[in-house]
Amino acid sequence: MTADGLARLPRTADLARLSLKRLSINQMTVRSWRVPELVEGCVRAGIGAVGLWREPVAETGLGRTARLLATAGLRVSSLCRGGFLTAADATARRAAIEDNRRAVDEAATLGAACLVLVVGGLPDGSRDLRGARRQVADALAELAPYAAAHGVRLGVEPLHPMFCADRAVVSTLGQALDLTEGLAQGLTEPLPAAQVGVVVDTYHVWWDPAVETQIARAAGRIAAYQVCDWSTPLPADALLGRGLMGDGHIDFGHLTAAVAATGYAGDVEVEIFNADIWATDPTIVMARVVDRYREFILTAL
Amino acid sequence: MTADGLARLPRTADLARLSLKRLSINQMTVRSWRVPELVEGCVRAGIGAVGLWREPVAETGLGRTARLLATAGLRVSSLCRGGFLTAADATARRAAIEDNRRAVDEAATLGAACLVLVVGGLPDGSRDLRGARRQVADALAELAPYAAAHGVRLGVEPLHPMFCADRAVVSTLGQALDLTEGLAQGLTEPLPAAQVGVVVDTYHVWWDPAVETQIARAAGRIAAYQVCDWSTPLPADALLGRGLMGDGHIDFGHLTAAVAATGYAGDVEVEIFNADIWATDPTIVMARVVDRYREFILTAL
Repeated sequence: MTADGLARLPRTADLARLSLKRLSINQMTVRSWRVPELVEGCVRAGIGAVGLWREPVAETGLGRTARLLATAGLRVSSLCRGGFLTAADATARRAAIEDNRRAVDEAATLGAACLVLVVGGLPDGSRDLRGARRQVADALAELAPYAAAHGVRLGVEPLHPMFCADRAVVSTLGQALDLTEGLAQGLTEPLPAAQVGVVVDTYHVWWDPAVETQIARAAGRIAAYQVCDWSTPLPADALLGRGLMGDGHIDFGHLTAAVAATGYAGDVEVEIFNADIWATDPTIVMARVVDRYREFILTAL
Repeated sequence: MTADGLARLPRTADLARLSLKRLSINQMTVRSWRVPELVEGCVRAGIGAVGLWREPVAETGLGRTARLLATAGLRVSSLCRGGFLTAADATARRAAIEDNRRAVDEAATLGAACLVLVVGGLPDGSRDLRGARRQVADALAELAPYAAAHGVRLGVEPLHPMFCADRAVVSTLGQALDLTEGLAQGLTEPLPAAQVGVVVDTYHVWWDPAVETQIARAAGRIAAYQVCDWSTPLPADALLGRGLMGDGHIDFGHLTAAVAATGYAGDVEVEIFNADIWATDPTIVMARVVDRYREFILTAL
């Protein structure tokens, strides 16, 4: 090879950075960072995208966040979150729809690949699970055209069944797909895949005996792919039981290959709620995330 | 009505006791009682059956327990438990099969309606969920004829998906039925329903979008019906988050009616793991269980 040819080959460091282009850091993983620090940290590490939450974005300012991201050339793999569509009375349900419209507007400003919907649990004092699920179906059909008109894709996220009572009555990927396809609502046409997709989060779906079948069925509907591990024993606060990939029981190669086989070309977002990780210097957390992403995810992507 | 006719009518107190004939108390609900106290407590309350655990039965003695039950006229709605069939190596799997055979022998001596199988989680250090599920399928096919030869019915219990990693890789009723029907093993014939059934525990299945369909499918296969409530927030120890019927989010009328509609004529076993209930006088716990059984279960049975 000529000296000229050698000069045109990417250097090892560039290759390493190239491999991180589909990695996204959800800001809850490094939650002590505000948006400007998060953007800087991602640029420094060569990470291609971020997952954002509405509250810290509002702290920094929606417009300023959008400008920081544009300058840095970072994509927004998801905005968390809309949803909480279940409620005991019509007034509260109406307020939830209005709040979701505002979330759609914010997702549009940020150019987010999707607005994540955590659909909500049983209304206070209610045991009517089927009724709550109908409320979600109805609200979704109402929100989808609004999101479409603003160029935003909704991502229905099934949550682990242990959150069914208090956070999300959508508990499996199959159920989320039934919703997006209009089956739950008795619609004659599916909601367009560009308007309404599903979020596949390894933590929430890994246990499902039908996970492979349902990921395959989700082809073209995967709005976001989120990864973190299932660690045992569960911590006292079940919300914080998420681990870094490789620290728990999930076979990431298997699930990531299944997602990749659908043709999914989006980002892989690392979203970890974990008290130990939150107590660690975010720069160190970022380096660990990068290492684990290379070890457990990238090879299967 | 004549005085003679009046005398032949059951008295109110007898009617009230009659209504408890299908109620079973799992001994973990009143765990400070040893077997003799449990038997006495049930007779005093007019409860028809008990759910037993192998360890406390062994403490009292298997033969003595059987005699106490026979004298009292109590049925055994289930023996907990066999299972834990997954293991990293063949020696450990063989030991598990042997232990399950002993559990079958004990269930036969007690005349239990079924031996509950909590199938086991991922083997230590393994992330091969499908492999663990195959181990369960294979072990079940091996155990079924042994159980049948001893007149014992196995009850495969799907556990809530939050226990998938560490307690049971069978996570849904549909998956349990696939196993009993030989689908998971590629058997050409289902395992006979008299040999292998499923355990329906409201705590483990209530969230499942397919629960009504799968309960209907389980007709003739329901080996035990266990009830307790799903309370929130989850306690620090997720194993102890079970509540008395009516204290949580489960619609017992709906699920009980679905079970009754299959023709299930067995007992309704109240199995509650809960630190507050364990700290309460068992006689008071029994009285509360009876009240809640009448309020939430009996009307739907």
